[in-house]
Amino acid sequence: MNNSHRMASGTPLPNIDQTPAPQTFEAWKQAVLHGTELTLQHTLPASNETPARLHEAMRYAVLGPGKRVRPLLCHAAGEAVAARCPALNVVAAALEMMHVYSLVHDDLPAMDDDDLRRGRATVHVQYDEATAILVGDALQAQAFITLSQAPVSAACQVLLIRELAIAVSSTGMVGGQMIDLSSIDAELDIAQLEHMHRMKTGALIHASVRMGALCAETTQENLDRLDRYANAIGLAFQIVDDILDATADTATLGKTAGKDAKNHKPTYVSMLGLKRSRQLAQQLGEQAQQALTTLPGRTDPLHGLVDLVINRLH
Amino acid sequence: MNNSHRMASGTPLPNIDQTPAPQTFEAWKQAVLHGTELTLQHTLPASNETPARLHEAMRYAVLGPGKRVRPLLCHAAGEAVAARCPALNVVAAALEMMHVYSLVHDDLPAMDDDDLRRGRATVHVQYDEATAILVGDALQAQAFITLSQAPVSAACQVLLIRELAIAVSSTGMVGGQMIDLSSIDAELDIAQLEHMHRMKTGALIHASVRMGALCAETTQENLDRLDRYANAIGLAFQIVDDILDATADTATLGKTAGKDAKNHKPTYVSMLGLKRSRQLAQQLGEQAQQALTTLPGRTDPLHGLVDLVINRLH
Repeated sequence: MNNSHRMASGTPLPNIDQTPAPQTFEAWKQAVLHGTELTLQHTLPASNETPARLHEAMRYAVLGPGKRVRPLLCHAAGEAVAARCPALNVVAAALEMMHVYSLVHDDLPAMDDDDLRRGRATVHVQYDEATAILVGDALQAQAFITLSQAPVSAACQVLLIRELAIAVSSTGMVGGQMIDLSSIDAELDIAQLEHMHRMKTGALIHASVRMGALCAETTQENLDRLDRYANAIGLAFQIVDDILDATADTATLGKTAGKDAKNHKPTYVSMLGLKRSRQLAQQLGEQAQQALTTLPGRTDPLHGLVDLVINRLH
Repeated sequence: MNNSHRMASGTPLPNIDQTPAPQTFEAWKQAVLHGTELTLQHTLPASNETPARLHEAMRYAVLGPGKRVRPLLCHAAGEAVAARCPALNVVAAALEMMHVYSLVHDDLPAMDDDDLRRGRATVHVQYDEATAILVGDALQAQAFITLSQAPVSAACQVLLIRELAIAVSSTGMVGGQMIDLSSIDAELDIAQLEHMHRMKTGALIHASVRMGALCAETTQENLDRLDRYANAIGLAFQIVDDILDATADTATLGKTAGKDAKNHKPTYVSMLGLKRSRQLAQQLGEQAQQALTTLPGRTDPLHGLVDLVINRLH
């Protein structure tokens, strides 16, 4: 086993920094996406490493298209408390690996059974079901390898690892997927629906914000402000997802549209209607913005991400 | 998210110690099995915690029957370098969760498609396929939560987490399963077979020994000795597995016998024959014993485990 302070691919981590800080939100976003992509490229095992088919499938699942909402939130929260960029790139890559593993498993025939994701064939369609299960399993492990090599103190590494592990556990993301699967044809009230979403997508979005901030070892007050931001934007993200599933087409979404209604799944749209769902998303966006007072660093990326999440088209 | 230094179930970790040290190997083994079971009972989320069906299935998979070879190796290696028992119990529980997750996923219809494990219905038979996928996913996360709360220094926690994450990654256990699946009807030579097993089962057995020793922050020389022990016993374990698959019956094994031949999988028995396979297992056992000179702590458990692995009946 390789225990040196290096990435699993065997070469030292590139020092991807972004100086000077880009001025506009769009330039900031492009810089973060570029840093995330380079770090993912570097952190995932090479596609010619044995077993090549597995590594090729892991890279197929992770690299390329993707909104990278969690890496963006991680960087934005980190910059709001003056965290250093090299650590944020590594943490953002771990978050994206974890998110992609959940997509690969959720798309499996025994789960949501979908064949389109990010505008391409899902992993079990492009490869096969066994490979897709193993891709997800390996990406979860790779996320923890990556965090165990983040350029922060050991104490901070453990905080990051614990935060992520709890967020994706049976009381977080995986538990939310379990509830979601059993909600088909079930009568949920709005509180139960919110609880499910806070676990299924909210927990990892929440962790993305917190982990960015943890890189700077910031104050509890700042973490509390970012918690409020994360809770609001996490729920807003899911409501917009429900709205898009009901209103956008498959080509725009890059994944199958109209699935919730077809599967008789309760959603914000089915329970509140389109108009009230849109109002609720807007209100949550305002709550998120209001949480961003008196943070020590740059907050315009966190503000920009509220607009991006609320007004996104896919 | 709960970030305090507590187990996910919300109550403090019990301080399970074993004083005075049991005299015989059998008494030592029973004490370790008892400590492992108590720690697993305590560390897994309660079966009435939401989502209850998922937590019930996780506990069904982990608790109860099981040889607990990895917890035993972890404790034995730790005691050989004078590690403290409370840390070993936690690390051993994390290892067993990780092992069980791999069993649950390997048994899935898309993988080895088996309906019997440890003498009981596999998780996807007892519950359903989606639940089995999520049980495995959640157990992997739970193993990392558990390690992030081990009563050792943060630096040691990170070493343990990195060791386990690399062992179960695409270049370790999951990669080995990928190669194993693609070996059906394939022509492997003995070196390729050994390489596959070193990844599929060897990596986690190796990590079990190393992680026990890492709890004591021991010398590199002691780790090297234990590496040699682990490499030998890991391969011996797999050869005995192949022998048992060919010679024992399903009732004794608690899992389906004769599967390798039925699935046209290359094994030590199919490549070397029974007699030479048994000789090779014995030789590896002797190599493992020879590695155990001049360790500072108690080594009779490590010696006893060689006998247990080589001469086991299931």
